[in-house]
Amino acid sequence: MKHQIKKPLILVTNDDGINAPGIRTLIRIMRTLGEVVVVAPDRPRSAQSHSITVSSPLRLKLIEEADGYREYSCNGTPVDCVKLGTKIVLRGNPDLLVSGINHGSNASINVLYSGTMAAVIEGSIDMIPSVGFSLNDYSAKAIFDHAEEHIRQIALKVLRRGLPKGVSLNVNIPKISEQPIQGVQVCRQARGTWVEEFDERIDPRGQDYYWITGVFSKADNAEGTDIRAMENNYIAVVPMQFDFTAADAIKLIGEFDFEPKKVNNKEHQPARTING
Amino acid sequence: MKHQIKKPLILVTNDDGINAPGIRTLIRIMRTLGEVVVVAPDRPRSAQSHSITVSSPLRLKLIEEADGYREYSCNGTPVDCVKLGTKIVLRGNPDLLVSGINHGSNASINVLYSGTMAAVIEGSIDMIPSVGFSLNDYSAKAIFDHAEEHIRQIALKVLRRGLPKGVSLNVNIPKISEQPIQGVQVCRQARGTWVEEFDERIDPRGQDYYWITGVFSKADNAEGTDIRAMENNYIAVVPMQFDFTAADAIKLIGEFDFEPKKVNNKEHQPARTING
Repeated sequence: MKHQIKKPLILVTNDDGINAPGIRTLIRIMRTLGEVVVVAPDRPRSAQSHSITVSSPLRLKLIEEADGYREYSCNGTPVDCVKLGTKIVLRGNPDLLVSGINHGSNASINVLYSGTMAAVIEGSIDMIPSVGFSLNDYSAKAIFDHAEEHIRQIALKVLRRGLPKGVSLNVNIPKISEQPIQGVQVCRQARGTWVEEFDERIDPRGQDYYWITGVFSKADNAEGTDIRAMENNYIAVVPMQFDFTAADAIKLIGEFDFEPKKVNNKEHQPARTING
Repeated sequence: MKHQIKKPLILVTNDDGINAPGIRTLIRIMRTLGEVVVVAPDRPRSAQSHSITVSSPLRLKLIEEADGYREYSCNGTPVDCVKLGTKIVLRGNPDLLVSGINHGSNASINVLYSGTMAAVIEGSIDMIPSVGFSLNDYSAKAIFDHAEEHIRQIALKVLRRGLPKGVSLNVNIPKISEQPIQGVQVCRQARGTWVEEFDERIDPRGQDYYWITGVFSKADNAEGTDIRAMENNYIAVVPMQFDFTAADAIKLIGEFDFEPKKVNNKEHQPARTING
């Protein structure tokens, strides 16, 4: 008697919304690998980070059902989609969670703001092997052709080997160019920041308002960073965890004497950054 | 000639909204320490994490102006408030950023969802010494009396000593009880998770909808965690950083062969969690 190999079950989401070209490409790739369930936002929800919807009700809408395939839109955030996907739609964990393909890089500090990557972290909290894919091209007409076989291969490897508990992957793919992708590099999150340049305007009633228009400032493109890998036309894979503890600082901060006591004027001095 | 000691400049925000008792208490404490500028959400924005507002304009409204004090409400998220506070209101960094006092614990995994703590992390990205305060009591009528002198002392210490670059503090305070606060412990973020129990309902039109109603499941109250400290009636101080890199996993993941190649059936197996 021959054992039938069970197809893996793959949950797909994103933050650009269910109709974005990026998720349509990702769905197509995943359908070559297993059974696919999509639960994705019904509209763009970029820069929503790990937010969840607690003050209004959530809705799921069945969009398509076919052999080995179901697709739902949801009025919530990417993290809401993961919660509803696992707790309501699947009533259990999938074998793999993938998010993306994001229209725009989630390398460096961008990972903090990204709904695409928050969905991945949410998966890893629930011990689901989870991978986020982002293309370094914000255009809605971005081309994903050069990325497809790489994405397929990374998903396959994670399905086969799994990931350590609580670890997920942040995969950033260079924009298509004349030079082919050079390969895949496993690296660390580069330091970096956004330089906010608010666009300050005045409305027809004479009131000020502001648009956030940040410019990414890469402070760090050292060897071994996601930024450097992409500059060299490599796909950057950063293994991620979700413990914010600054373990190295516990001893130093432990030496602060936080207990209440009599206060003297010497303590009213402006702040300094230690070693800064 | 005697030098006049310049008062420190303190930026205050939260995620429960500008009228929450927690932020009113925090403002009162901070006004005893320096010049205070408040930029806080005009309504509750809990569980907004690190989200920013990119698809609608932001507004600032001056609520109060007095000697050494200015207060603005903002229609954005807590992170928007920090960005507007530093880039538009102050046009520079304050000496200290404080966020809270949150109505509810931000210990363990809660830190990922919290707008209060995202504002703190945003401050630390900009190299501002930043501290978030949360009380382990979700009630809008929570009592903060037992926390006040501790909060004042922690803020003073950070003003005097600063914090290492990129490090911020997550301070969680036990709910008031008959036993006095035992002291302050510097510790690590406990592992934990929310067990989502969606409340599934049917609307008058016969359509399903869902409310998120999570129950926090503390998997980890080991010695040295924020959860354990609070269980023992200590204030928990976790030094935080914002690098998601799972440094320990880089070597292991580096041994995955991610390069595209011919695929065989053996690779279509369900996922396993390594060491799981």
